[in-house]
Amino acid sequence: MKLYSYFRSSASYRVRIALNLKQLPYDYVPVHLVRDGGEHLKSEYRAVNPEAIVPTLVDDENHTIHQSLAIIEYLEETQPEPPLLPKTAADRAYVRSLALQIACEIHPVNNLRVLKYLKRTVGVDDEVKDAWYRHWIETGFETLEQRLANDPRTGKLSFGDTPTIADLCLVPQVFNANRFKIDTTRYATIQRINDYALTLDAFARAEPGAQPDAE
Amino acid sequence: MKLYSYFRSSASYRVRIALNLKQLPYDYVPVHLVRDGGEHLKSEYRAVNPEAIVPTLVDDENHTIHQSLAIIEYLEETQPEPPLLPKTAADRAYVRSLALQIACEIHPVNNLRVLKYLKRTVGVDDEVKDAWYRHWIETGFETLEQRLANDPRTGKLSFGDTPTIADLCLVPQVFNANRFKIDTTRYATIQRINDYALTLDAFARAEPGAQPDAE
Repeated sequence: MKLYSYFRSSASYRVRIALNLKQLPYDYVPVHLVRDGGEHLKSEYRAVNPEAIVPTLVDDENHTIHQSLAIIEYLEETQPEPPLLPKTAADRAYVRSLALQIACEIHPVNNLRVLKYLKRTVGVDDEVKDAWYRHWIETGFETLEQRLANDPRTGKLSFGDTPTIADLCLVPQVFNANRFKIDTTRYATIQRINDYALTLDAFARAEPGAQPDAE
Repeated sequence: MKLYSYFRSSASYRVRIALNLKQLPYDYVPVHLVRDGGEHLKSEYRAVNPEAIVPTLVDDENHTIHQSLAIIEYLEETQPEPPLLPKTAADRAYVRSLALQIACEIHPVNNLRVLKYLKRTVGVDDEVKDAWYRHWIETGFETLEQRLANDPRTGKLSFGDTPTIADLCLVPQVFNANRFKIDTTRYATIQRINDYALTLDAFARAEPGAQPDAE
């Protein structure tokens, strides 16, 4: 199993946690998103993944899979233990909706290429760009906090006390927020879940600072 | 079953197609995203969905489900016929990755609230805003076209000849592109899939213009 990853990419971070939780060993193939104008944009990487984004998983049967949540669902189907989704369809839908709230509403708007376009093409300065970044995390986290704080299914983690795909999305998003100096202690439930998750080995080993390409 | 929907919302459109394909009757509850500053932002709708976005599905057992792809996976698990995902895990991952490419890479950056922020807070004019919109659809469609045109699994639709969740995301995204006068004939495979899908009753009945709140 081979994972094309960038230490700071939060989509890669999600998959690293999943692989660790399922105790699947993998080769880490670093793809630097900044150096040389971005290794992901070179033809060599585009041949692996024409989307030119990380992560990409290539499994032992040589299936190449894009998109972090598709990779995680694939691992869930092929390596079901431990499960990263709850048992009932309704609970599974709830957990998926938490993950998708982060993956579709918060994360994409702050993607590196969006920030680049904002700066280079729209022509905004760093102050406007940083305010943009904070705005989407803050408004997204307010709603996510409300959902998690009010739902009886919330435990030590987003759903009960064992990791689900919601936590796989939440922890990397908190990492991004902290990188941009957002005070996440305002989101008490999110912060508590993040702090607990990071005491678990599978999460801690997936942290950006623990990757071979960390700077 | 009750679907909170806005006729033009492409995430709602995805779920409407799924419900039609699975022949599930539902009550259409319109939520106007523009009128009165947006009905989705009022406390009445926030009580249904604190994310303040459409769609929301409330099923007959009173489960409230957010996020179009979580809703579709839920329908797939609870009402499996006809299936909207292929049989093998690898093919399912491929189809999910096509859907997620649209749902995570293309669609969110052009969301109404992002365009609003761009205009009101960043202060760009309509020309810059429209160029932004076109940029994300065009760069996204270029990659998607490449994937679909080169994959032997592409048939009359994104995966073979029967509808999958990839088509449920593709058709509404083409609708958005056309609304913004993007020449989608440049993306021959995408256009062909879209045109074929719209000959199917389940897709045609889900079109924005066919909804009770269409303007």
